[in-house]
Amino acid sequence: MGLQKCVDVDGCLAVAIDCAKRAGQIIVNNFHSAKTVEHKGMVDLVTETDKACEDLIFKQLKLSFPAHELIGEETSAENGTPLLTDAPTWVVDPLDGTTNFVHKFPFVCVSIGLVVNKVPVVGVVYNPIIDELFTAVQGKGAFLNGKRIYASSQEKIGNAMLATEVGTARDKKTVDRTTNTINNLLYQVRSVRLSGSCAMNLCGIACGRLDMFYELGFGGPWDVAGGVLIVQEAGGLVFDPSGGDFDLMSRRIGASNAHLKQALVSGLTGYVSSSL
Amino acid sequence: MGLQKCVDVDGCLAVAIDCAKRAGQIIVNNFHSAKTVEHKGMVDLVTETDKACEDLIFKQLKLSFPAHELIGEETSAENGTPLLTDAPTWVVDPLDGTTNFVHKFPFVCVSIGLVVNKVPVVGVVYNPIIDELFTAVQGKGAFLNGKRIYASSQEKIGNAMLATEVGTARDKKTVDRTTNTINNLLYQVRSVRLSGSCAMNLCGIACGRLDMFYELGFGGPWDVAGGVLIVQEAGGLVFDPSGGDFDLMSRRIGASNAHLKQALVSGLTGYVSSSL
Repeated sequence: MGLQKCVDVDGCLAVAIDCAKRAGQIIVNNFHSAKTVEHKGMVDLVTETDKACEDLIFKQLKLSFPAHELIGEETSAENGTPLLTDAPTWVVDPLDGTTNFVHKFPFVCVSIGLVVNKVPVVGVVYNPIIDELFTAVQGKGAFLNGKRIYASSQEKIGNAMLATEVGTARDKKTVDRTTNTINNLLYQVRSVRLSGSCAMNLCGIACGRLDMFYELGFGGPWDVAGGVLIVQEAGGLVFDPSGGDFDLMSRRIGASNAHLKQALVSGLTGYVSSSL
Repeated sequence: MGLQKCVDVDGCLAVAIDCAKRAGQIIVNNFHSAKTVEHKGMVDLVTETDKACEDLIFKQLKLSFPAHELIGEETSAENGTPLLTDAPTWVVDPLDGTTNFVHKFPFVCVSIGLVVNKVPVVGVVYNPIIDELFTAVQGKGAFLNGKRIYASSQEKIGNAMLATEVGTARDKKTVDRTTNTINNLLYQVRSVRLSGSCAMNLCGIACGRLDMFYELGFGGPWDVAGGVLIVQEAGGLVFDPSGGDFDLMSRRIGASNAHLKQALVSGLTGYVSSSL
């Protein structure tokens, strides 16, 4: 247990910010050029930039924290997702919103989370296109570009802004569930946004521009490991869409401000089964 | 016909840009503060900022072009939408994406179009939050922050990014049509974005970050009068969602790059009737 107890979270935050900023520069440099795209699935995309960003971040993390574990989207795509242990583990999405990146849609970010004893203790999400740096350390609040942020205080679902995503699966069962769920919630909320980045949606909850968010079947823990702590430190809630405890490895998430969890879970009941 | 023929479009563009930038500053100044909201409809919103921006823009346009007609969202909300004549007419949305503005979601813009003989000849759309200024003059191309932009060259609907909106009506017929249409198109396209600003969606087509866009039942001509010309001057297409000619006063629009109009219209067939 020695390693977990002596993690210097502020030092970890500084290195994570440095990694995110430097990877962000690679993203900016390549944002407007034509993209070389490999297909991971029918509509999932990976680019050279994703790989270059993950290489940069992993090299720096290995240098700074040689005893820490690493889980990254691109490495996992090649070798399978490692098990999450109690050891300090960096969970990295080098470019969340790859489809947005390919299309030059400005919601893209680097997401870096440090998880110790399976609990997120440092979170960094950086959108280099619109220059938004979200950061959090366990117990010390959440920040956007250095300024403290808070989840919204909205208590009425009728005034709430909901975010979700349509994902990448295109089988009939999934597509029908996706649109039927939106249909059901559309009667209850003010409006719905689909912006194509899971990590940015979590940060949207954290800074109050979104009130509720859910997504089912996203890529893996790298999409959420940075954002989850940022939501929690901003006073928001993270949970399984069924209302149960959030599981970082489950590929399903619900998030809301402090007031609207039950309203969102109720709106999802009957549309979200216990599995994906 | 004298007035229409002697419109100095470059001079008009300069004034429109100045208006958009100054209104944009009002939007930025009020973006992060709490909002005083009146309800126009159940989920439509209007703020003091919308009104202050329209006042500023109308005052300047009246001063610069005393003989021109004006149509603005806020003035129309109070007095009804004026008829569009052949006279030079400024069609202004002082704050497109009001719901985004209320929620601090960064897709908001000022949209200004000059229409002569019912044809858009100058278009300006400015997002002051992410500092994107889209401009076009008839026959002279479209620009983002001064740099020439073009619609995408994507020919395959399977690789296309589609945008639409869920609007503000919440009757069962409209909500079902909204989600059934998304359901049908979701099998065909790469992904779908809902970002909450009709004018920004048009600009997204113009700069290639979106390949296809449709919206039914938006507020009025002010939502599209600026963006339509920007799409056309970028090499994109604007049309009625049925495939027929676009009508500025119809509150329905389709837009695509040069290749995907027929694919979008086919995907909408059976979901889009001849009326709203």
